[in-house]
Amino acid sequence: MNKGFSPRRFLPIIAWGSHYGKGKFADDVIAAIIVAIMLIPQALAYALVAGLPPETGLYASMFGLTVYALFGTSNTLSVAPVAVISLMTAAALGKLSLDGSEQAVAAAMTLAFLSGGFLLLLGLLRLGFMANFLSHPVISAFITASAIIIGLSQLQHMLGISTSGQNVIELLMSLSQSVSDANGITLGLGTGAILLIVWCKTGLRRGLLALGMNARIATTVSRSGPLLVAIIMASLAFLLRLDQQGVQLLGDVPKGLPALAAPDFSLDLVNSLLGSAVLISIIGFVESISVAQTLAARRRERIDLDQELVGLGASNIAVSFGGGFPITGGFSRSVVNFEAGAATPAAGLFTAILIAVVTLFFTPVLYWLPKVCLAAIILVAVYSLIDFSVFRKSWQYSRADFTAVFITLFLTLVIGVEIGIAAGVLASILIHLYKTSQPHVAVIGRVAGTEHFRNVSRHTVETYANLLSIRIDESLYFANTRYLEELIFKLVADNQKLKHVILMCTAVNEVDMSALETLEKISEALKELHIDLHLSEVKGPIMDKLAGTEFFRELSGNNYLSHNQAVEDLKQGKVHLTSS
Amino acid sequence: MNKGFSPRRFLPIIAWGSHYGKGKFADDVIAAIIVAIMLIPQALAYALVAGLPPETGLYASMFGLTVYALFGTSNTLSVAPVAVISLMTAAALGKLSLDGSEQAVAAAMTLAFLSGGFLLLLGLLRLGFMANFLSHPVISAFITASAIIIGLSQLQHMLGISTSGQNVIELLMSLSQSVSDANGITLGLGTGAILLIVWCKTGLRRGLLALGMNARIATTVSRSGPLLVAIIMASLAFLLRLDQQGVQLLGDVPKGLPALAAPDFSLDLVNSLLGSAVLISIIGFVESISVAQTLAARRRERIDLDQELVGLGASNIAVSFGGGFPITGGFSRSVVNFEAGAATPAAGLFTAILIAVVTLFFTPVLYWLPKVCLAAIILVAVYSLIDFSVFRKSWQYSRADFTAVFITLFLTLVIGVEIGIAAGVLASILIHLYKTSQPHVAVIGRVAGTEHFRNVSRHTVETYANLLSIRIDESLYFANTRYLEELIFKLVADNQKLKHVILMCTAVNEVDMSALETLEKISEALKELHIDLHLSEVKGPIMDKLAGTEFFRELSGNNYLSHNQAVEDLKQGKVHLTSS
Repeated sequence: MNKGFSPRRFLPIIAWGSHYGKGKFADDVIAAIIVAIMLIPQALAYALVAGLPPETGLYASMFGLTVYALFGTSNTLSVAPVAVISLMTAAALGKLSLDGSEQAVAAAMTLAFLSGGFLLLLGLLRLGFMANFLSHPVISAFITASAIIIGLSQLQHMLGISTSGQNVIELLMSLSQSVSDANGITLGLGTGAILLIVWCKTGLRRGLLALGMNARIATTVSRSGPLLVAIIMASLAFLLRLDQQGVQLLGDVPKGLPALAAPDFSLDLVNSLLGSAVLISIIGFVESISVAQTLAARRRERIDLDQELVGLGASNIAVSFGGGFPITGGFSRSVVNFEAGAATPAAGLFTAILIAVVTLFFTPVLYWLPKVCLAAIILVAVYSLIDFSVFRKSWQYSRADFTAVFITLFLTLVIGVEIGIAAGVLASILIHLYKTSQPHVAVIGRVAGTEHFRNVSRHTVETYANLLSIRIDESLYFANTRYLEELIFKLVADNQKLKHVILMCTAVNEVDMSALETLEKISEALKELHIDLHLSEVKGPIMDKLAGTEFFRELSGNNYLSHNQAVEDLKQGKVHLTSS
Repeated sequence: MNKGFSPRRFLPIIAWGSHYGKGKFADDVIAAIIVAIMLIPQALAYALVAGLPPETGLYASMFGLTVYALFGTSNTLSVAPVAVISLMTAAALGKLSLDGSEQAVAAAMTLAFLSGGFLLLLGLLRLGFMANFLSHPVISAFITASAIIIGLSQLQHMLGISTSGQNVIELLMSLSQSVSDANGITLGLGTGAILLIVWCKTGLRRGLLALGMNARIATTVSRSGPLLVAIIMASLAFLLRLDQQGVQLLGDVPKGLPALAAPDFSLDLVNSLLGSAVLISIIGFVESISVAQTLAARRRERIDLDQELVGLGASNIAVSFGGGFPITGGFSRSVVNFEAGAATPAAGLFTAILIAVVTLFFTPVLYWLPKVCLAAIILVAVYSLIDFSVFRKSWQYSRADFTAVFITLFLTLVIGVEIGIAAGVLASILIHLYKTSQPHVAVIGRVAGTEHFRNVSRHTVETYANLLSIRIDESLYFANTRYLEELIFKLVADNQKLKHVILMCTAVNEVDMSALETLEKISEALKELHIDLHLSEVKGPIMDKLAGTEFFRELSGNNYLSHNQAVEDLKQGKVHLTSS
């Protein structure tokens, strides 16, 4: 991989911008309009999930999309607020004792800056591999649990009441205390909104297709369900003065673009948000590149993981100066952008311009939007994130993976998002170490008349009483060297006639320093017992490393290219092999 | 491994006790005397390292040796105070604000109980594999750094001054402030003691051998250097009233056996010591089994790792009721026990009896022992623990291992033992994940005229323009699936003619759920591009797991037993392979 700095790499817009033409422009504009229709209500709704004023969602979208267009490598990724990151933002802010929405916005800006700074740092240091520590099943379980928490947190708006809580238990207790104050009209509006959005996605689309409408246009119309519902609800609220019936409205949304302002860098705030920012960065990065990679692969395009870190990092830093909260590339929105035909990152830039236009001219209309309408949009969106199939699949496929999945889901639901995801990561790493700490090791013998060696407990093979042949089916590293040592000493203790041990290393892809020292220790112990230690079929790169070591110089036995040759050679030796 | 509970397994003394006879008794008694001579001054000295009154070292030895004899599986391990664990005890107690030595002893007892309880728990749950997370080089670096800190902390007694500090920086600053108060006579005694002990180990032994003395007796005599020096120093102090010259004496050591008392279980104390107890347990366990395994292997004996956890756990719990501090199997003392011919764990029991006799009758003599004498014993002992060769070796062998070693040494020295070892463990795990996150993957082609496939960039091989053969040289799991995905998508994006991809899986020892999902994703993406995905040479156990999955049912291509067969088969197919 090219580690040098080049402006074309750091600013991918230089590369694609120089080939930009009318055809791509038309494609990008159409995609931008479709995405904006979807994004406007989403941006307002996710601000609500994050516990922030609605305009922050619009600001975050505007700045995120614009800056990603300069630095990002995906042509279709839509970088703006997403459900899970908004929930994590709420959890991070929930730990602080904040007084009013102004302080909350200030803290959210700092969080976005820290998260962006961390992503940028990882990108510049080319540490994108850190995202690999999150296993797929753990992420799936985390997203499902987060979606459940978000759904429960939105029930307050569906019922026109007020609840609080960071996990399922707190939310359910809070709900049970105030459910008696529920507002019937609000619940009715909410239920209607959900049904309408779902119908747009399913029935309307089918109907339009049946009427012979072009599939792309039909899909676009069906995707505008949330916007349509928002317009209907706001009109109803205005015409029927529903606020007088106890329906909560969105209220004043400031008109115009945000004033740029530096986030608050006070040490206390930074200290209390840093851990959350790291978690948000990693989850956001993994979510983003998963969709970016999937979409890129479908068009045989490529994304650059380290540059994606730079792109997402820069976007979040920009957002932190524009009064927003942490953002990342969202799944459903990016798919819409892809299917709408976005050709370059410019599509995101055009979406940002449309959002800016809304912010400049249309915020007074938002006053009349009932909060329950946004809650309905969120509920439909997060419902599609809930996927329990990972439980069944992992249970069937591997109990180890199931354990990690279960820990993640359970702790996220009952304690909260941060503990949940941290425990999930830890569990998957420990499980991996556990699995590789007990490698498959087989005592082998020769299949008569061939040069093949097979496990003595599965095949009828030739063995010798004073020769032990062992095949190691795993790389040797610190977590499994003790197991190997114990096994060899056990086999040696059980066989008093032993004169030779051969380790067959075909599947050994790595020998770390711990393993080297263990081999030295085994070699010395065997030497005292007058048993020779031999190696066979060591891979080239491993041999290169071993060749210069004391272990190799002091080895009592030999190093053989083939295991068969080792056995043949020992048969010729002064200690005759005796059949067993 | 037998997971059931059996009294013979849980109490190994039942097994070896039933064959106990006169011959073994004689061997054990001789070994016990030799070890006791070595252990008595050591026990006093390590109590000093732990910052506790000298008698606690005697109590810890007595209880530890006795209980290990009941539960332990090693015939030669000597379970009593050791340098590194005593230092870690000092570090753990140093974090508390303790008032006087009575509170320190109470806290040390709680620490021993927690450490013993954790070891016992791991043993009963058969979680001995946890010790594997400590790599050899990290342990080596940790022991070297600990030895340096212990050495520096003993300089105060060599100089007759008083210093404090948990790391090199604090100790050096403290030393520089009070070095002007150094007592010349103390320094003289200390230097003399060191020279005498070293001479006993080297010159005296050579001399005795030259005089024709039996090697075993010569070694025993040379090992009694510390005791000899202690007797000389105490006599000098008594005869010359050195205490009036500013030489610090050990002072009153209570006579008689300790009163049994339950440790202090107050929640605050337990909370502040729990983390330290876990670290002490793991380091102690690893140090102990390393020596136990080495010594057992030399005699073709075996130890049981899970039962060793039980033995060490029970010993520490016993110690916690007897007024001691955390203990474990020490290296040099166990080697002496081994070389002195200890035949069964009863040797330890006899050593404990000798220590009890000393405690009952000889403590008044200890009053006159100068502290500098113990410091000299400690300095000689820890000097042999310092081993910088691991730096050179790891630097030459692998920069990754060197990094972990360096982090451990550096942080232990400049911050302290707990941060140092925790960082070392974390570093080695992250480095392992990093290494396996970028597996070796080779594009392969057929060596003309053979059935062998080799890396295209190293060998002259046959390839086809519309066929991509990839050999994966690593198990597939969450940390490397993204790498594989990126690589395949890159190779696919670069080759527009591609119709078939075959993954050769000879070195794939594991496919976890993340890897399965990535393979599904790759398979789907390739399907959309009308490229077939095939597998070849999948190992049996992996095949068993894959067979039931949706990935396998939906696979566009086939699963071949041999890679050659795959290529031959595709040549016959409807899409003709075109030579490249």
